[in-house]
Amino acid sequence: MTNAQTKIHNFSAGPGILPQIALDNSIKAIQNFAGMNLSILEISHRSKQFEAVVNDAVQIVKDLLGVPEGYSVLFLQGGASMQFCMIPMNLLDEHETAAYLKTGEWAMRATKEAGLFGKVNVLATSENENYNWIPKDYVIPADAKYFHCTSNNTIFGTEMFSFPESSIPVVCDMSSDIFSRPIDVSKFDLIYAGAQKNMGPAGVTLVIVKNEILGHVTRKIPTMLDYKVHIKNGSMYNTPPVFAILVCLETLKWVKEMGGVIGMETRNKAKAALLYDEIDRNSLFKGTCVLEDRSRMNVCFVLQNPELEEAFLNLAKEKNLSGIKGHRSVGGFRASLYNALPIESVQALVDAMQEFEESNK
Amino acid sequence: MTNAQTKIHNFSAGPGILPQIALDNSIKAIQNFAGMNLSILEISHRSKQFEAVVNDAVQIVKDLLGVPEGYSVLFLQGGASMQFCMIPMNLLDEHETAAYLKTGEWAMRATKEAGLFGKVNVLATSENENYNWIPKDYVIPADAKYFHCTSNNTIFGTEMFSFPESSIPVVCDMSSDIFSRPIDVSKFDLIYAGAQKNMGPAGVTLVIVKNEILGHVTRKIPTMLDYKVHIKNGSMYNTPPVFAILVCLETLKWVKEMGGVIGMETRNKAKAALLYDEIDRNSLFKGTCVLEDRSRMNVCFVLQNPELEEAFLNLAKEKNLSGIKGHRSVGGFRASLYNALPIESVQALVDAMQEFEESNK
Repeated sequence: MTNAQTKIHNFSAGPGILPQIALDNSIKAIQNFAGMNLSILEISHRSKQFEAVVNDAVQIVKDLLGVPEGYSVLFLQGGASMQFCMIPMNLLDEHETAAYLKTGEWAMRATKEAGLFGKVNVLATSENENYNWIPKDYVIPADAKYFHCTSNNTIFGTEMFSFPESSIPVVCDMSSDIFSRPIDVSKFDLIYAGAQKNMGPAGVTLVIVKNEILGHVTRKIPTMLDYKVHIKNGSMYNTPPVFAILVCLETLKWVKEMGGVIGMETRNKAKAALLYDEIDRNSLFKGTCVLEDRSRMNVCFVLQNPELEEAFLNLAKEKNLSGIKGHRSVGGFRASLYNALPIESVQALVDAMQEFEESNK
Repeated sequence: MTNAQTKIHNFSAGPGILPQIALDNSIKAIQNFAGMNLSILEISHRSKQFEAVVNDAVQIVKDLLGVPEGYSVLFLQGGASMQFCMIPMNLLDEHETAAYLKTGEWAMRATKEAGLFGKVNVLATSENENYNWIPKDYVIPADAKYFHCTSNNTIFGTEMFSFPESSIPVVCDMSSDIFSRPIDVSKFDLIYAGAQKNMGPAGVTLVIVKNEILGHVTRKIPTMLDYKVHIKNGSMYNTPPVFAILVCLETLKWVKEMGGVIGMETRNKAKAALLYDEIDRNSLFKGTCVLEDRSRMNVCFVLQNPELEEAFLNLAKEKNLSGIKGHRSVGGFRASLYNALPIESVQALVDAMQEFEESNK
């Protein structure tokens, strides 16, 4: 093992755990990239060796998700937060309305940003219940410009396991569950994801966009914020985040090796079941979300007696369980079970929960 | 040496050469960051260990450049190209005029982008002479909102060794010569630089901005494009490009160790003198730029007889001189002598030029 003498179980909500092989290969590329005797950090992004990385990264995204013809795959900068403004800037004229589903903090931020560019219709929200469920009882208006949703809510621990029928373009923030399960890309018109959960390190954002939805707004779009510019230039209009793209490629090669998104879904279902079963069985803990909407990526749970919280965090630390403190919006604990987290780490957390139950009888 | 069995002389125009110690320390951080037994690529950006990296990086920028009180130092995404639109978006109202000096490709792109947000007054340009000199005979209008210039023109090989007096805010793109020499930050109101030449890898952009120039435009600025948001959040409004910032810190620690920007200037003057002297002496070669404006960072030169070009590129390859092919806008050769390039590499290039002269007598 390259990166640890003590094995740490990494439940970080993001940037999150990456496959060891991706870390190892990324280090090799810093030492000597593609036999050039130069580091990946100090070569031209126009070199044929790096162009191959971008091409391979685009291709593996297409292969893993089954991206149909007519879509472009982009690697951009700025995170999902930059997409919150790029999407309405490119898709929504001032007099038009976009429909948003408000299922958490990031959905809320996306909604707010769209309001700078046009009208926003919030179709449904679970805000009053601290976003602990996914609204399903709404109709997407046929006259809205697009429908925006968030497939997984990292902070609140809910996930959309079905998507509504829509006669208008569907835009989805998949930052925290992309590549964790199969999706039917043809049902979406724009998918975006900050890389730093299931795909790579911080500093690069994946965008998969159906070409035909672009080019219909009347405003002047700044060059760097125009999807068409990035499509035309193959994500190389300006210097891309070279190393972050390489780490994504190495991570996605591992995903492919492990059976692709179907393999990931099997893994992730088993990990989530192991932890949720323990949460439901253990007399000290309880989950925070409605059962049917529980995320497989971010498992939020609390103690029946919140006064024990610090004691459990101390035990977790002692057991090398890292990153399980809950977000301040929910409290308690959050265990992020991203693709690269092995089930052994979940078992270690379950063992700690059982030990904690024993010692607090 | 970690990254090469064969020593390559890396004259890449960018992403460019980095100090070996910065590469080595960056690898260590991927293996085990700050004693956490986790990789820098898979930890929370909100961890105290990474917050220390950002704080240290901000502080070393302030120390190296002598940034006065009242300025903020930011690490953003999107490259200098994103700054081309962020600057007018934050500083220029629709009815107002900004003054631009057009000294090359990047200055031209910055100028074009400003036109989307307000009026642009191009004060001077050397476009008709393929940008081979820096205009100096112009007056900055007192009623413009700001003056924008490019301190070093990477493609054309010119550099501004003096800056005009200005009664209005001065904005400068220093992407390719920042930290290569002392600058008086108090004479500037906004300095920006893509990291991938003298400061770190691709994927992060330095912005140094005088706080008082912000907040005066009437338009609504998208959250991610608002400098005030990034200042308020210490470059952590959303997940920053974690690893790229770490590599910058490691690179700037090396700059400090080597005598800071004064040490760099001494090094860079010696390297540039060695190469320009050979260009001027060697009967086969000639420089492309006006003498007084010749860049110390990017040395552009051509053969008196262009038919020999391929032969010299072959010799360069044989001598492990990498990245010296000129940009298509100029042709011939370009040797980029960024901070981390040792004078031994310049000597190797000079030796090759002399050998080439001998064999073409």
